[in-house]
Amino acid sequence: MTNDFRAGLLASGLLIDIGVDGLYGRSATFQRVVRGIDGLVNSAGADQHAAVLHFPAVIPRFVLERNGYVRSFPDLLGSVSLSQGGEELHAKLLARLEHGDDWAELLTSSDLALSSAACQPLYPTCSGRLPDGGRRFEISGECFRYEPGLDPARMLAFRQHELVHLGDPYRAVAHRDVWLERFVDLLSGLGLAIGTVIATDPFFGRTGRMLASNQRAETLKYEIVFAAEPDDEPKAISSSNYHLDHFRTAFGIESASGDGAHTACNGFGVERVTLAPLSTHELDPDTWPPGIPSRLWP
Amino acid sequence: MTNDFRAGLLASGLLIDIGVDGLYGRSATFQRVVRGIDGLVNSAGADQHAAVLHFPAVIPRFVLERNGYVRSFPDLLGSVSLSQGGEELHAKLLARLEHGDDWAELLTSSDLALSSAACQPLYPTCSGRLPDGGRRFEISGECFRYEPGLDPARMLAFRQHELVHLGDPYRAVAHRDVWLERFVDLLSGLGLAIGTVIATDPFFGRTGRMLASNQRAETLKYEIVFAAEPDDEPKAISSSNYHLDHFRTAFGIESASGDGAHTACNGFGVERVTLAPLSTHELDPDTWPPGIPSRLWP
Repeated sequence: MTNDFRAGLLASGLLIDIGVDGLYGRSATFQRVVRGIDGLVNSAGADQHAAVLHFPAVIPRFVLERNGYVRSFPDLLGSVSLSQGGEELHAKLLARLEHGDDWAELLTSSDLALSSAACQPLYPTCSGRLPDGGRRFEISGECFRYEPGLDPARMLAFRQHELVHLGDPYRAVAHRDVWLERFVDLLSGLGLAIGTVIATDPFFGRTGRMLASNQRAETLKYEIVFAAEPDDEPKAISSSNYHLDHFRTAFGIESASGDGAHTACNGFGVERVTLAPLSTHELDPDTWPPGIPSRLWP
Repeated sequence: MTNDFRAGLLASGLLIDIGVDGLYGRSATFQRVVRGIDGLVNSAGADQHAAVLHFPAVIPRFVLERNGYVRSFPDLLGSVSLSQGGEELHAKLLARLEHGDDWAELLTSSDLALSSAACQPLYPTCSGRLPDGGRRFEISGECFRYEPGLDPARMLAFRQHELVHLGDPYRAVAHRDVWLERFVDLLSGLGLAIGTVIATDPFFGRTGRMLASNQRAETLKYEIVFAAEPDDEPKAISSSNYHLDHFRTAFGIESASGDGAHTACNGFGVERVTLAPLSTHELDPDTWPPGIPSRLWP
């Protein structure tokens, strides 16, 4: 997305600069589009009878340890540090504050981290044997990924809305593919010029490049990509992922038949999807082509 | 709240234990009550023409430095640590992970922290001179306070919904008092046995006790309190705060007349207010007395 688009978002008050690149307040109008898109996905999934869950932005640190996130995406993660050292630590913090020095480096690590995908805290809660047919979830939550920059489509703190299946391999693959198609339909219906690509996760480092290469060869991940301007590089606004038995191994999730469960998730970045029609049409949703408001706010 | 109430919330699936005390997933039913309460407050404030804003859970660290939070509430705060040390740090993290050692203590402090009140990132964005009549905001966002424990009414990660006024002193006080009364009406209308008390913030340490004593003497803060069970100590589910010119000093906010702006905020803990009717009536909102659903879901 271009600086012009960002400037327009800030000038119109849709986004509010709060002092660090990548962190924004959202206006009532922005939130109205968010709610419209959330509602559209919720309605599209009514036939799935998924359990709808909301998770917090802060999650147990062990989740990131056991699901491989620390191994594969250390550069993106955020952990929570605390100031639990009583009066003595407090005095040191105050001295640092007064001299304009870094007080936060005196804080200590905790068992808490920031969620980097809304479905992360779900998998440990599904340990054990799944019912016949597996389990389906519709998940929302706020996430954090450290990708600093000015592009409003790459916020540090953003929300995700995800559809998750845990069960037999063929059902997990079918879930991923059905929801990929549904997302394509939903996003096309908003007048967005999208594309679908075979994709890889941004695994870290040398080992990461091998993991990415395998992921691509097995076509485990698809992304729906969108460019805010003709010259921009298209960026994922949604991803559809087949995890094989990755979470089974991490959290002991067994299918009804006693085999290891396979999982899939289809998610979208709520702010990225919200920005897409704002860049395609106008910054004022009241002027959008008539077919679009009627979908978002039926 | 009692362990029985917590057990009922978990058994009914309204809350989902995600592995650390104080962190919970929320069910569709829980979220439906949340939306009802958010809508009720939004409607009650329609005459205010407030700017409605949503802020992220992660905010710039300088906000907590300049607004006095680090000084006054170090024990409650959370800062964000990052792993930006490249391949070398990654190798160390993996070694710690493999041995079950604390890898997060290798991370480094950042310019990011967790928001501990939804309105915190607002004040720096209001630097400068306010328009005639001041400015009004309706704010929502996810917050973090480190108060670990089993009581579901004391979550580590929770949401707040706040009404904020910045302007002349008499308007700030009037805002606080009008919204205190409105909250009392709204919460009474949900069939809740609430009380209103003069309150103080949980300022840290020895200096903090003096600050609290002054705050009480000047009756700057009121809380609406509620007990889930007759034997429980009533706990704040909402607070109404007159900040004097605290944020003016911190962030250079001037009133239209050129005097320092005074501010007030009235907020409620979204999850605490949601839990209150669940404990007063039944865990299934469909069985609540008929006057209540008609208010929440008109």
